[in-house]
Amino acid sequence: MATMAPDPLPIVRTVAELRRRIRTWRDEGRSIGLVPTMGALHAGHLALVEASTRANDRTVATIFVNPKQFGAGEDLSRYPRREAEDVKAMERQGTNLVFAPTVDEMYPKRHATTVSVTGLTESLEGAHRPGHFNGVTTVVTKLLLQALADRAYFGEKDYQQLVVITRMARDLDIPVEIVGVPTVREADGLALSSRNEYLTPAERAIAPALHRGLRDTAEAIIAGTPIREAEENGRAAVLAAGFTSVDYLACRSADDLEPIETVNRPARVLAAARLGSTRLIDNIAVPCG
Amino acid sequence: MATMAPDPLPIVRTVAELRRRIRTWRDEGRSIGLVPTMGALHAGHLALVEASTRANDRTVATIFVNPKQFGAGEDLSRYPRREAEDVKAMERQGTNLVFAPTVDEMYPKRHATTVSVTGLTESLEGAHRPGHFNGVTTVVTKLLLQALADRAYFGEKDYQQLVVITRMARDLDIPVEIVGVPTVREADGLALSSRNEYLTPAERAIAPALHRGLRDTAEAIIAGTPIREAEENGRAAVLAAGFTSVDYLACRSADDLEPIETVNRPARVLAAARLGSTRLIDNIAVPCG
Repeated sequence: MATMAPDPLPIVRTVAELRRRIRTWRDEGRSIGLVPTMGALHAGHLALVEASTRANDRTVATIFVNPKQFGAGEDLSRYPRREAEDVKAMERQGTNLVFAPTVDEMYPKRHATTVSVTGLTESLEGAHRPGHFNGVTTVVTKLLLQALADRAYFGEKDYQQLVVITRMARDLDIPVEIVGVPTVREADGLALSSRNEYLTPAERAIAPALHRGLRDTAEAIIAGTPIREAEENGRAAVLAAGFTSVDYLACRSADDLEPIETVNRPARVLAAARLGSTRLIDNIAVPCG
Repeated sequence: MATMAPDPLPIVRTVAELRRRIRTWRDEGRSIGLVPTMGALHAGHLALVEASTRANDRTVATIFVNPKQFGAGEDLSRYPRREAEDVKAMERQGTNLVFAPTVDEMYPKRHATTVSVTGLTESLEGAHRPGHFNGVTTVVTKLLLQALADRAYFGEKDYQQLVVITRMARDLDIPVEIVGVPTVREADGLALSSRNEYLTPAERAIAPALHRGLRDTAEAIIAGTPIREAEENGRAAVLAAGFTSVDYLACRSADDLEPIETVNRPARVLAAARLGSTRLIDNIAVPCG
């Protein structure tokens, strides 16, 4: 005797089909949340889906490993891909539709248009990953305009990306609310990241030192240590814990990522560091006053 | 006794008010056409409005002299501005709403985002007006996303701009149909342009030579003259007629503006030339086969 299984989570591959499905929901008056991902989901992504399902009638998650945001020599080819597993996890979390386009669907022949944000993208990640943010802002503009959702969800783990995307959406009048979702961490403080899988067991044991370094730096700044000195101590602590190198560890204004001398407005300490062949990033809020 | 005057054409100054009005129309199921202009209207602009009113239930025209598309030393400050007169002409042509934002409304504090198209923008106008197309693509993206019209209308007079905007809208998945409208000309062939007002009477008498040069070049190519030779003859004729200099006069593929050796696909002859302190542009189709 057949049992009634729930309909499986639909996966669409084309913009036309994505829009057709979303139009049906719009005609029914549904609100729509968008969760762009590169797949290889962990609990951090699922927190984005959860935030979206709480605030919207329908949630669309996207899976697209965007080649344009990887630089030469970066980890595009080894970036983890496991769509079937990702789709199951999204389904359990209440996603209503998965959009998983091919590279050719996203960048058809003679694609020639780039969205770029100056200033915000030039320091921190931008200084260490040339072209990265142009790849991010271009693909996110496309995803936002393909879906025309009410809200789109991005993790605070990529804090600079969140600030850049928020500015871009405002500057281009993209009709969407950009929502940031707090970083999800392992019990020892390590921020969840698809790149954590690259770590050897020995590296995994060292990795939480990045979050500790950020936390100790933020606490030192709150306690009155001069910002430049606190940053230097934070970098030294991360290296002393066994990281191979520190690309940056810096306290910045939370809204425009400008260097600050004193915490007279909300601030953020952000860091990127290498552990063997893996590059990890993380950040933490420095409350104001 | 009071007579019933028709409601005057409404002018809105903010994106929020533009969207509020358009939402009302959307809720009524109306289709919407957008006609972006820099004001200083002539019959060429009104042909855009006419094309829009024919195909859409409601037509929104915009008036915005976009500083970002003028280079240093170009004619931003002297570009003609006459809003009241423009609005009357738009009203007579059946426009339903005028959007005339301030520079601060379009580019609020810390605006930092640019839309750019590579390749297509690098030759012809792009080679002679550095930064021009980035200004155009950025402001047009904004206008398209502010209005989210069904169709947007651009003149073939700015043919390269039309090709660039079409590519940009496709590449970024902007949900709009870009419609090109044929150039409107004076009886003597001069393409209508807001910049024709800069011409002295003597220059105005010379100006139609640009269109004649384009027409003769296209006819020579169709008759079998080698393209490079026809272009050279066209440039010589424009100079001989009294133009001060020719920035370019070139036969290109109509769809991607690449140089071509033979007309085995639709082509376009495009030109820009200076007449005293005024720079005029024009173009003409070269039918294929």
